[in-house]
Amino acid sequence: MENNKISVNPCPGYRFAGVSCGLKGDGARDLALILSTRPATAAAVFTRNRFPAAPVLYGRRQRAAGTPLRAVMINSGNANACTGHQGEIDLMTTVEVLASVLGLSREEIFISSTGVIGEPFPVTAIIKGIEALEAAVAKDDAASAAALEAAARAIMTTDQVPKITGTEILTSRGKVTITGLAKGAGMIHPDMATMLGYLLTDAELDREVWQAMLERVVQKSFNRITVDGDTSTNDTVLALANGVSGCCLETAGDLELFEAGLLEVARQLAYMIVKDGEGATKVATIAVAGAASVEGAEKIARAVANSALVKTAFFGQDANWGRIVAAIGYAGVEIDPARVNIDFDDVRVVSGGMRDPAYREEAGAAVLRRPEFVVKIDLQAGEDDYSLLTSDLTHDYVSINADYRS
Amino acid sequence: MENNKISVNPCPGYRFAGVSCGLKGDGARDLALILSTRPATAAAVFTRNRFPAAPVLYGRRQRAAGTPLRAVMINSGNANACTGHQGEIDLMTTVEVLASVLGLSREEIFISSTGVIGEPFPVTAIIKGIEALEAAVAKDDAASAAALEAAARAIMTTDQVPKITGTEILTSRGKVTITGLAKGAGMIHPDMATMLGYLLTDAELDREVWQAMLERVVQKSFNRITVDGDTSTNDTVLALANGVSGCCLETAGDLELFEAGLLEVARQLAYMIVKDGEGATKVATIAVAGAASVEGAEKIARAVANSALVKTAFFGQDANWGRIVAAIGYAGVEIDPARVNIDFDDVRVVSGGMRDPAYREEAGAAVLRRPEFVVKIDLQAGEDDYSLLTSDLTHDYVSINADYRS
Repeated sequence: MENNKISVNPCPGYRFAGVSCGLKGDGARDLALILSTRPATAAAVFTRNRFPAAPVLYGRRQRAAGTPLRAVMINSGNANACTGHQGEIDLMTTVEVLASVLGLSREEIFISSTGVIGEPFPVTAIIKGIEALEAAVAKDDAASAAALEAAARAIMTTDQVPKITGTEILTSRGKVTITGLAKGAGMIHPDMATMLGYLLTDAELDREVWQAMLERVVQKSFNRITVDGDTSTNDTVLALANGVSGCCLETAGDLELFEAGLLEVARQLAYMIVKDGEGATKVATIAVAGAASVEGAEKIARAVANSALVKTAFFGQDANWGRIVAAIGYAGVEIDPARVNIDFDDVRVVSGGMRDPAYREEAGAAVLRRPEFVVKIDLQAGEDDYSLLTSDLTHDYVSINADYRS
Repeated sequence: MENNKISVNPCPGYRFAGVSCGLKGDGARDLALILSTRPATAAAVFTRNRFPAAPVLYGRRQRAAGTPLRAVMINSGNANACTGHQGEIDLMTTVEVLASVLGLSREEIFISSTGVIGEPFPVTAIIKGIEALEAAVAKDDAASAAALEAAARAIMTTDQVPKITGTEILTSRGKVTITGLAKGAGMIHPDMATMLGYLLTDAELDREVWQAMLERVVQKSFNRITVDGDTSTNDTVLALANGVSGCCLETAGDLELFEAGLLEVARQLAYMIVKDGEGATKVATIAVAGAASVEGAEKIARAVANSALVKTAFFGQDANWGRIVAAIGYAGVEIDPARVNIDFDDVRVVSGGMRDPAYREEAGAAVLRRPEFVVKIDLQAGEDDYSLLTSDLTHDYVSINADYRS
């Protein structure tokens, strides 16, 4: 993607704000607003968790209605999950207030929440925060990078850094911009309820095309990372296209070019989430190739990427390939062990299911001392492949998650 | 089982030895022998890992042949896994030597290995150790508890304690004894390649009856524990019945009584493995009830028991029920969130998918400060249930597994 330049300039036609309404306790920003200057065609994907949070239930109804959106409000500090009927009433109350303050209809508003599960939703604090949001968005320059960063900070929970990226794409109709922001540091940890992503563009797209494109892109980005294998009750990726650029993307060539840029933005955000993974010191790509099916390759990649033993070995910078072999073996995929090769970056470790004759432990350990590396698993059984990103399992992960609420 | 007394008196008709042949390096015992004074009817279950170790491949052939067994040799320190054809040759060499030293036929010998994967099998050291084994078993008293403990210690890897238990059962034919020994501290961690269990009785049983009984018992004991969710290349449970008691168990009543005793022994060993789980400070029972199917109950129990977030919360003594709810939600089972109740021991935490109105955080935290507790999940969707044992995820787990080979 040589014509795509990663930048953090906010996409034209969107305004941002991030304020504190007291949910985080230490005065940190905890309420964000994304405002589109024009009604934006929306696409969204949601968690498949059987305990969906109130904003996920609401968001699904919004998606089904298909009304263009003007505003997205996101709070951190409380997930509005396992809050029952009262949680849905509280959500609708905040929607009413936000619509009234911004002069929009309820149908134009999208809501996300992230934070602790099962606590009553702090509707009073958020209603107060809405006034501050409105003041902030009015005051801020429409294209302010500072306002975008304030919004990205306001959606953080255990994240160490805000996650923003973007790109510009030259289409046959002219230049369009994509800006992405996300939060998530355990992928995907339920108490933090948890991964949220927003992909904003000034291109114009057909709603069904946009939804299908988002689903493909999420499959290849946010669904290809894991920190602890847990799946949240709140995960949401929302994509808005407001057409402010005047570029309507319709031709196959433009759509292909645009989708590549969108995927790059989503992958950058996904990478940032793993890199910021709770306690993580490593980003490892688990790349399975030569599989008889994509499903098989994915099962094996996930078994390796989620193995507590593999992840602690990464942390220990211990080239313990036996743990990788064992995870491949229990993934539930028929394989021929005698054909399996494993490389750590450019070092051949396993050949034909056994330690490669030329392999020296030190060479493998040297790779694992790198902050990022690729574990390539070649099954030599077919043409399919699958790869995903994972982090290591560290003392800090245990500390963060054992002590989170204490 | 009021008539079953748990004891560690070795079962009559078996002799034991545990010696050092230098595999562990610090002079610790690493080679064990179990000798049956009469040919014993054997039953066995093996790992389903797609990278089975050489002794698992050999053991499967032994089971298929169905020859009664006289001797079981087990080494720790090296798993003879991912060692290819050479590993099988090395295994057969040790079988030849052991058969010759003990005056048995090769077909009467069973071999297990546990330890690091992918290192060449130390056949020379083990052949030397066989002489020491033979001397030790000849010198020891046949019914020596000390010899049994030496054998149980010789099969340990990261285990902190040897795992031995037993029971006596009064059948219509007279008294029979069951002695069990096992090793395993990560259930089931591939580098240690890993869980091994031996169930020995002086009862006489039909081979097919014995095999079917073992499979049922393993399903309800060793398959109902998890420390880190990993599955080893070497896991094996072997059951021997040598008939030395003169009691042939044939009636439904006797078989039922005996199976209950066998299950109790297997459960005790499984409990010991979780309690000795790597770095574990807690033993938690995840008990799912009111499920529409046993399969659904098992999926939910495993999702909760294997969740890194649930396990770190147990370590932190943090009654973070939101993580349990989220794990139930992503288990892939259709449930009605609004019917789910969760209890920590006798404390109702969640009612109808929300925090119980009467629940106080301190009451939940008090349960989690106990070394052992039950998390009861009632789906109120049917009559089926499933429960398993899990440990917590601790700093020591990370230390043990990050630094194991360093």
